[in-house]
This record gives sequence, structure tokens and C-alpha cells, in this order.
Amino acid sequence: QRKHRIAVIPGDGIGKETTPEGLRVLDAAARRFGFDLELTHYDWSCETYARTGKMMPDDGMDRLRDSDSIFLGAVGWPGVPDHVSLWGLLIPIRRQFDQYVNLRPCRLLPGAKSPLADRGPADIDFYVVRENTEGEYSSIGGRMFPGTEREFVSQQTVMTRIGVDRVLRYAFELAMTRRRKKVTSATKSNGITFTMPYWDERFAEMAKNYPEVTTDQFHIDILCAHFVQHPDWFDVVVGSNLFGDILSDLGPAVAGSIGIAASANINPEKTFPSMFEPVHGSAPDIAGKWIANPIGQIWSGAMMLEHLGEKEAADCILATIERLLAEGGPRTRDMGGQAGTVDVGKAIAEAV
Amino acid sequence: QRKHRIAVIPGDGIGKETTPEGLRVLDAAARRFGFDLELTHYDWSCETYARTGKMMPDDGMDRLRDSDSIFLGAVGWPGVPDHVSLWGLLIPIRRQFDQYVNLRPCRLLPGAKSPLADRGPADIDFYVVRENTEGEYSSIGGRMFPGTEREFVSQQTVMTRIGVDRVLRYAFELAMTRRRKKVTSATKSNGITFTMPYWDERFAEMAKNYPEVTTDQFHIDILCAHFVQHPDWFDVVVGSNLFGDILSDLGPAVAGSIGIAASANINPEKTFPSMFEPVHGSAPDIAGKWIANPIGQIWSGAMMLEHLGEKEAADCILATIERLLAEGGPRTRDMGGQAGTVDVGKAIAEAV
Ligand SMILES: CC(C)[C@H](C(=O)O)[C@@H](O)C(=O)O
Ligand SMILES: CC(C)[C@H](C(=O)O)[C@@H](O)C(=O)O
Repeated sequence: QRKHRIAVIPGDGIGKETTPEGLRVLDAAARRFGFDLELTHYDWSCETYARTGKMMPDDGMDRLRDSDSIFLGAVGWPGVPDHVSLWGLLIPIRRQFDQYVNLRPCRLLPGAKSPLADRGPADIDFYVVRENTEGEYSSIGGRMFPGTEREFVSQQTVMTRIGVDRVLRYAFELAMTRRRKKVTSATKSNGITFTMPYWDERFAEMAKNYPEVTTDQFHIDILCAHFVQHPDWFDVVVGSNLFGDILSDLGPAVAGSIGIAASANINPEKTFPSMFEPVHGSAPDIAGKWIANPIGQIWSGAMMLEHLGEKEAADCILATIERLLAEGGPRTRDMGGQAGTVDVGKAIAEAV
Repeated sequence: QRKHRIAVIPGDGIGKETTPEGLRVLDAAARRFGFDLELTHYDWSCETYARTGKMMPDDGMDRLRDSDSIFLGAVGWPGVPDHVSLWGLLIPIRRQFDQYVNLRPCRLLPGAKSPLADRGPADIDFYVVRENTEGEYSSIGGRMFPGTEREFVSQQTVMTRIGVDRVLRYAFELAMTRRRKKVTSATKSNGITFTMPYWDERFAEMAKNYPEVTTDQFHIDILCAHFVQHPDWFDVVVGSNLFGDILSDLGPAVAGSIGIAASANINPEKTFPSMFEPVHGSAPDIAGKWIANPIGQIWSGAMMLEHLGEKEAADCILATIERLLAEGGPRTRDMGGQAGTVDVGKAIAEAV
């Protein structure tokens, strides 16, 4: 029987509540589709930081390295600055495991409500492919003349040929093999005149390898506007680390699914484990109440199974989520229901 | 009688069609409210570039310097790369005249249609204040190892204390004196860890001077989502050059007014002329047909009059636009009507 080793990091806040539901559904899928999940739990979180001064132990990355995938809840808690919590856990995993693709589906699920007027599920169904290791999130920068009138800070955006080409290739492959053969590139070469024109240049170069794929490109400002006005234009949208970040929150927002959106941090070569996490954060305001919506976590689990080669199981989970939503199954408050986190998880697990 | 010297640059494409309508309405307002406009026309455009190899003559900036304001149509034309057209005209004016505030109203006008469900004019009424001279639009950067595997590009984002403080001050003053006393800051300090935390620091510092102003801040990704989900949360939103650019397209998009939005590039100290321009571009696809909507240009004219101290006239123009829209006056195609550019301009001018 096939076996997949999963490192589980619930993290902070509602991550602790949604992760068990994700696992419940994964377990149901494993039984139904005949594979084993070998789970290793890590309680790394802002509490670990409070206790030890570190988000994870010194050998943390080594311990994760042998897993096939990492299943993450959420990271961050009030009182612990982001540069500690995120840069001590989330960002090093993305970078050191070279998870250079951040993949986020933007879909209007049946039964969910988009804030847009007159839009149905057929209108919003695309992927954002985000570069996940370089670009605007760079470690080069600093401050000069602190505390004086001439104080300034600077930070470099860095784009390498290797980094840009591989994420573009992923986007084109995705469009070609699993989607409707259209790739849209996010740019801002009219304002950001060194890095963005290079992105455009590599995009044009990569497109030559995929003559069947239709391409277009928009500056990020008008592209955001188009997400609102014409979400039906898009199939695969590819952008830099920052632009991809923005678009992969805006996409789920227009689809009315920001609370339930899933994301995958992928190392396509499988040299390192990939990581799967919901788009939502640790939500301190509702943590502890067990009312958080677990669908984002469960959907992330489906993306993980697809990455692990369990496509049938992945499709089944997604279809189950859609069916229960459409049929009026249990919903948490954010979707207008009364159910708790566990109710929703159980309903989906049972239906799987 | 008060006199204002205006430099008029229609520019390219529909800019040539909307600018005369802007002037028609300005002229009507001048007659009604008793001031003079001394206009100087400049035909600088991509055609100038085709003829002379430059977007404007060498002494272009000097010629503009003595005007009280610059009234711009649109810049850019297919075949002329942005780094020529924009960086040869628009960007130098913004920078050399230290127009460090880019101000854009985001309003759902009565009679306009928002793409959002269930939103009326009372829900969408805020300003985006964008830093307009530094930040991500920097001139420091380059490419190394061209044509090889290790090729990379880099570009520095630069934020100076002077640059950040003055735009924040403008935002707080605006909130305090002309708005509902709330300022929202756009940040991304969890990912962009040198420049953005500095922005946050200066924002917190500036807020101390305005104890009556309510503040909040969001990372740009979730802020874009909130624009779609909760546009009613905002009053004055302040952001860096790039974030302000994104938000000031997204704001009008959620308000259904991206085709008619106005913008002001302001040098608040009036050491240099400020520049007023519609948000839309030169729209090559409809240029020459005289069907472009002139409202963005006319609204920009109203912002210009406000800057020149003609507040009554500015209010009158805006109220007239609103009234004609609400009453079903002539509309161009983008707003579901049949009228041409000139029809709309004339109707507004006559009503003023
Ligand atoms: C044309 C471009 C350089 C410009 C900008 O990004 O500043 C435009 O998008 C704007 O917002 O005025
Ligand atoms: C938490 C933050 C650093 C992160 C990012 O911007 O990458 C988040 O917004 C995301 O999209 O996963």
C-alpha cells in the first residue's frame, strides 16, 4: 500500500482547530482510496517562541526534510512580531525547501457568495501562480543616517533568470496540461523599470515554447481592477512574489472565498517537501471558540494529495466540499450557518 | 479678477478629445464664478517623439514652471515604449515639480454602476493618497551577467524620512480638515522587511500629532481584499508609490468609475505647479471615434480648481456631474448611453 509521510504543523490560533479537521478528512480519503499517511506532529508556534526564544528548534528544518509534504495550519500571534513568527518558520520553509511555486485556486464555489453582482461559479475559476522565493521579499536592504533628517531605507528587489524562468515554466505547464491554455502575466514595467521589464522579457521568451497557449499581460494596477470587473478573463495568472501575493488574496476575495481558500507551496522537482496551508491566518479574534471554517485547511489537504499523486482522492474531497455547500450541508458562521469547526470537518469526512 | 495660468497638455489618443471638454467646463466655471484662466497649449505627445526624438523640448520643464497648474490628458501610444513616453513626460513632471502627493477620489457616483452587489453611493466614498516621487519607482537598479544562467536584475526601493513624512502628513491633514478623520495605511511589513516597517514606524510617529484621527493599517494583500469586501471601511487610505498606484485603480474599479476617475499630482507647498489628469489612459482602441467619456477629465479640472483656491467652482462642477448622471443626462457608451465626448462636455458646461 502506498505511504506518504506528512509533517503536521498546526501552528497558532485557529490553525490548531482547523488542522485536526484537515487530518480527519485526509484520513477518510486514505481509507477510501487505499493509501497510508504517516503523520509526525510538530507543535512549533508562537508558544514555542515564548518558551524557547525560537519558532522551531535548531534542527527543525532537518526534521522536516524527510517528509513527503508539510501540512501547515497558520502562523502568527499578537505580541510576536511578524519578522519573528513568519521569518522564523513560514518563510525559511518556503525558501530553504525551494518551494518556488505558490499556487492558489480562485474559484467561486457553488453555494458561496461572491461580493460581485451577477457572478456565478462559471465566471470565477482560475489559478494564481506566485513566485515564492525571491523578488520583492528580499533579504538585501537597510537603513542609513538613522534618526536624522536624511534618514532613508532601501530594499532590493532581485529577480534571477533561474528564479523567473522556472516559475513561468510551471505556469505554462499548468495552463497546457491541466487548464484552459491561457496565461496572464502581472507586470508593472511602466513604473518599475529594471526588474519588471526583465520579467516581461522572460515571459515572452517562455511563451515561445508554448505556441498553443494564449498569453496576455497587464500592469498590476489595472490587473487588480480587471479581477473585479472581469474575473472571467483569467485561467492561469502568474506574478512575482509580491504581485502574486496581492492577486492571490484579491482573487479569493472576489470569489467570496477568502476564508476558505487553499494554497500550495510547491517544490515541483520534489527534491524537498512541499507545504500546504490555508490562505487565512491564525485569526486571534475567533481562536479558541471552535467556530473557524475548516474548509481552507481541508481544501489545502486536497491540494496536498494531488501533489502526492493521489489525484482521485483529491478530486473526491473537492467534489465533496462543493456538494455539501451546494446541498446546504453544515456551515460555519462566516458562511451564514451555525455549525462549529468540528461539525463541518466531520460532515465532509463522512461524505468522503 | 483672479487669474490662473494653466499649461494644457492634451497628449495622446483620447487625451486630445477629452481635454477640450475639460476646458469647456473650466471656461464655463470661470465665467460663472468670476476668474480668468490663461491657457498655454503644448502639443507634446508621442507624435512629438516621432518627429523630434523627444517627448518634450529640452526647455519643456522650464516652460511649464511658471504656470499655476498643468492640465494633462493622457500619455502613451502603441509603438512608443513606456520608458520613453511616460519617463519622458509624465514621470519627470511628477518628480521635478515635486508633486509628491497623488490624490485620487474613489466614489460611487449616483447613476454609475458598481460591479459590487448591493452597494450604493453612501458605501464608497474615500480618497487614496499615494506617495508620488520615490519608493518602488526608483532609478537605482540594473542587470548583471546578461545572457547567462546566472543573469539577474535588481532594483532598489528607496524611502526617505522626508519623502515618507510629508505624504503621511498630507494624508492626516486631509483626514482632519476635509474628511471623516480616519486614515488607513497600506503596508507589507511582514514580507518586505526593510522598507515597509520603516513606513509603519513613521506612520505611528505621525499619528501622534493627530490624536483625533482614527488609524488602522493592513497588509496590501488583505487590504485589496477589503476594498472589495468592505469599501465602506475607508476614508483616507495612504500608501507608497506602488501600493498607492494599485489601490487607486482598484478603488475606482470597485466604485465602477475607473473610466471616469480623476487624479491630482500635487505639490502642496505650491513651489511648483501641480498636475491634474484623468486616471484612464490614451485608449488607442477608441481614440479618433470621439466616444470617450470626458468625465474623468472634467472631474480632474474640478480638482485643479480646488487646488487653485476656487472651491466653490470645483464643488459646482462635481455637483453638476452628479446631477446630470442621476437625472439621466447624456452618457457615453461605457456608461450605457449613446452620446459622444462633446455632447457630454457641452451638457455639463451648460449646466454649470
Ligand atoms: C503610467 C504609469 C507609470 C502610472 C503609474 O503607475 O504611476 C499610471 O499607472 C498612474 O497611476 O498614473
Ligand atoms: C504572512 C505573509 C508573509 C505571507 C506572504 O505575504 O507571503 C502571506 O500573506 C501569504 O500570502 O502567505
